[in-house]
Amino acid sequence: MSGKKILIIGGVAAGPKTAARARRLDPEAQITILEKGKHISYAGCGMPFYLSGQIHDFDHLYSTAYGVKRDPAFFKAERGVDVILGMEAISIDRANKKVVARNVDTGEETVFEYDKLVLGTGAYPITPPIENLDLKGVYRLNHLTDAEKIKQAMDAGEVNDVVVIGTGFIGMEALDAVFNPMRTVTVVEFRDTMLPGILDPDMAKLLYKNLYEQGIEGRFGEKVLRLEGEEGKVTRVITDKSAIDADAVILAVGVRPNVKLAQEAGLTIGETGAISVNEYMQTNDPDIYALGDCAENTNLITGKKVFAPMATYANRQGRVVGDNVTGGKSTFKGILGTGVLHCMHVNVARTGLGEVQARALGYDIETVRVSTFDMTHYHPSSNKVLFKMIVEKNTGKILGIQGLGQGEVAKRIDVVATMIQYGGTLDDLLELDLGYAPPFNTPIDPMVHTGNTLKNKLAGVAKTYTPEEVEAKLERGEDFLLLDVRTPQQFNMRHIEDDRVQQLTLGDLRDKLDQVPRDKEIVTVCVMGSRAYEAARILEGAGFKDVKFMEAGMEGWSFDMDE
Amino acid sequence: MSGKKILIIGGVAAGPKTAARARRLDPEAQITILEKGKHISYAGCGMPFYLSGQIHDFDHLYSTAYGVKRDPAFFKAERGVDVILGMEAISIDRANKKVVARNVDTGEETVFEYDKLVLGTGAYPITPPIENLDLKGVYRLNHLTDAEKIKQAMDAGEVNDVVVIGTGFIGMEALDAVFNPMRTVTVVEFRDTMLPGILDPDMAKLLYKNLYEQGIEGRFGEKVLRLEGEEGKVTRVITDKSAIDADAVILAVGVRPNVKLAQEAGLTIGETGAISVNEYMQTNDPDIYALGDCAENTNLITGKKVFAPMATYANRQGRVVGDNVTGGKSTFKGILGTGVLHCMHVNVARTGLGEVQARALGYDIETVRVSTFDMTHYHPSSNKVLFKMIVEKNTGKILGIQGLGQGEVAKRIDVVATMIQYGGTLDDLLELDLGYAPPFNTPIDPMVHTGNTLKNKLAGVAKTYTPEEVEAKLERGEDFLLLDVRTPQQFNMRHIEDDRVQQLTLGDLRDKLDQVPRDKEIVTVCVMGSRAYEAARILEGAGFKDVKFMEAGMEGWSFDMDE
Repeated sequence: MSGKKILIIGGVAAGPKTAARARRLDPEAQITILEKGKHISYAGCGMPFYLSGQIHDFDHLYSTAYGVKRDPAFFKAERGVDVILGMEAISIDRANKKVVARNVDTGEETVFEYDKLVLGTGAYPITPPIENLDLKGVYRLNHLTDAEKIKQAMDAGEVNDVVVIGTGFIGMEALDAVFNPMRTVTVVEFRDTMLPGILDPDMAKLLYKNLYEQGIEGRFGEKVLRLEGEEGKVTRVITDKSAIDADAVILAVGVRPNVKLAQEAGLTIGETGAISVNEYMQTNDPDIYALGDCAENTNLITGKKVFAPMATYANRQGRVVGDNVTGGKSTFKGILGTGVLHCMHVNVARTGLGEVQARALGYDIETVRVSTFDMTHYHPSSNKVLFKMIVEKNTGKILGIQGLGQGEVAKRIDVVATMIQYGGTLDDLLELDLGYAPPFNTPIDPMVHTGNTLKNKLAGVAKTYTPEEVEAKLERGEDFLLLDVRTPQQFNMRHIEDDRVQQLTLGDLRDKLDQVPRDKEIVTVCVMGSRAYEAARILEGAGFKDVKFMEAGMEGWSFDMDE
Repeated sequence: MSGKKILIIGGVAAGPKTAARARRLDPEAQITILEKGKHISYAGCGMPFYLSGQIHDFDHLYSTAYGVKRDPAFFKAERGVDVILGMEAISIDRANKKVVARNVDTGEETVFEYDKLVLGTGAYPITPPIENLDLKGVYRLNHLTDAEKIKQAMDAGEVNDVVVIGTGFIGMEALDAVFNPMRTVTVVEFRDTMLPGILDPDMAKLLYKNLYEQGIEGRFGEKVLRLEGEEGKVTRVITDKSAIDADAVILAVGVRPNVKLAQEAGLTIGETGAISVNEYMQTNDPDIYALGDCAENTNLITGKKVFAPMATYANRQGRVVGDNVTGGKSTFKGILGTGVLHCMHVNVARTGLGEVQARALGYDIETVRVSTFDMTHYHPSSNKVLFKMIVEKNTGKILGIQGLGQGEVAKRIDVVATMIQYGGTLDDLLELDLGYAPPFNTPIDPMVHTGNTLKNKLAGVAKTYTPEEVEAKLERGEDFLLLDVRTPQQFNMRHIEDDRVQQLTLGDLRDKLDQVPRDKEIVTVCVMGSRAYEAARILEGAGFKDVKFMEAGMEGWSFDMDE
């Protein structure tokens, strides 16, 4: 065969995707993938689900949807792509367009020529400065073999007191996979909050409250210093503040882009530490492309470069690079940082900027917390969901949204992510024609409801405190009335225990206004916020001067509780 | 009380929503709702779910999410709104701003004054010209009492051979509610296709194939002429083509806007037959608003007026009218005709223009059919989904999408509906940052995959036939080869029975090119389309001149079959 030589370094996600696309566009090209590991094109994202037992067959993680194992023979036969496993690229000779690679078993070196070179070298797990990480019972979750090891230990009954170090996406998925009521599970997070940088601290706190009620424990703002063991097996995790018994430790402290090969070849590395690329995914050498976890991304809202190692970007970029190495001009403009997660019966989703991120970047913002149902409340499958939306004040531009709950939150975050891509505003949100039928939605979609509430807030019609603000007022000993307008039954099931709390059912409020003091600030509260809003409007209409309601109600205090 | 008089005619959805919003904005206003029926603010959309037994308690359909019954006492206490049931508005005196209404029981007339009048008079069910509709066992599904009657008959064992007349949204939900394997269920549709105007005929045919396999029978293009009965009870349905035994008939032939009151008052009625309104939901009398099922909508793609009686529009318009009758300037610009439905384990969703609609309007379009998974195929909850996308050829602008399958289709339709609102194109689709994790999505979202396939088609890289085109070629006796590239096992489970079909596994194709005739047109086929596409590219790369693949594979032939 003659044809253009396309050489791809890395065979997990980005590389094979690039190869497949390039092959479809150019039947003549010689396409070769070098992968230093023993597997190609495996579903790394599926590891937690293998661990949890939801995926029974390990082979599924490296098979196609139609059950064919993705090995070199498959790539040769179905894709016409040469895959060489156990082959690590060690240097690039850009002037002569050659790559030197070394067989990881024999050490033998081979030279590969290229016309177009694609770097999909991925990321490597951070090894934190913790002593004794080599003890037995210490696991990572980066390769399929890691998942297999943990699974075997779990099946052997060796995983009972588990400490998960790190609460990013991987740490939380690991938590989900290992949690069961028979195990003691503790998560330790160096930063002050769960899912740092992914959820705002207030949303993270709410999530943690829920997971804590389910039976896990979190240690935040704690740094793990060392592990202790007996007979070579881990027994304790020692942090700068405490000690935790453990017979299993899962390290999930994040990854760094694998850029050594690129850096040594003189390719530009961005300030994020990942390989700098333009919108064609080209490095500063126009014949060398980089994509996936080793390449930098652009945040579409801020225009800033970010390191965002997500499988979906790797796959989508694979198509772009496949186009471009075969003569096309496709682009990948950037990302919003959309992410979804399922952990211990809770769905978590986010896109765009969080409140903390937006404020740090100098945006003048308003936010709102809303609790609602994901479908008509009378439908037996309905669940509660809770959202926090962040908009720019003067433009109404939506900057970000975060959602939590047993219900469907991912769908709503996808809709808002789509809007953000177009610079969508609160006004646009109210014009969306989203599908409604009782098993799918409420007549007014949760996102539209959230937008309505935020508009009410911006217009001064809805004056609110967040649950955290109410909590802080209570703690500061402020004199105000927390007027709980739920029914006595709902009130008795759970309420905020404080002398400043008074129950007065919404339906009775108009007739019993004399029971509400006129000389105090009033904060109304209900289950999800709408009755409290109604009550606040009634009080304001009756001349009460200082009235607010608590956003998202008791669900914003601690969500998904029975009531 | 003094304050502005806001009079609302109609108390199902649009009216109460208007009242609630107006009350929150204007505590002084005198707000009155006149409703001719005996219930207010009931969840009409929930009726099929009550029928199916998914909603056990009838009261849930007219209760708030927090369990309080929405009756006049509730509206008075919680909303400060006067609701008068059994009171039918019979004339409007626009000059003097008065409405005459009649008590439906006593016939007594009362005059109500207004500053702002709101018409939420809804729609009434069409009564088709069918003889003997008054037989026992003939039901409608328009009011809560209808649902109760059918439920009682079902519980009494009187509903065994059911005929549903009409296959719009309500007909299909009725079908879903009454279907069970112990009943004979037939649907009769006057037009040639199921869900006419909602799904394109090809998608409707696919849906019907699936429902037929599950055990229902459809009669399309058949007009019901009369019902026959014995002892006052229905026994047969007679159409212009056949006779069907029946002990129960459900009439679901659609609704017409209730505009008599508006028309007699000289308000403009649009060519759709509904009340003409501007984007503030104002009629030609600036003090009279109309909304919900009685008012006209604007299709945002075509700019044309449409009659689209959907609960979500009624609710969203309620907020707009509530704003405007209290001095605001909110708008409701129009709709895309987004709709979702669950019927017999199949989710159906659509938005925008169908292929037939787009062609009728003169658009130069391209379409594609794609079958894929709604989440990573290795996740145990994954399901197949099938989409048809319609774009304008020269601009790439997305005009519409329709989806079917056991999997999550509604989420994807919402994303595309959001894009259409912004005039989104195929290129935009590939830039969307949608949430990915194995329980929620595939790394490349089904919509992005659909867009990719359509781009391949427009670029000439993917040359395809739809399954209908393949079927037509087979029926015409054309000489071509249908090359099935699935594994022998998959082929044996189901395949198209024809001498022109040849099995040759994709993985063997490169080595066995000599087994493929070079003098014939080749159409490749697999389960969902991707292997067939791969095979077509291999054949084209090897010099075969006339190669296409079948869009959406065997799933596009008949979806959700075990394989």
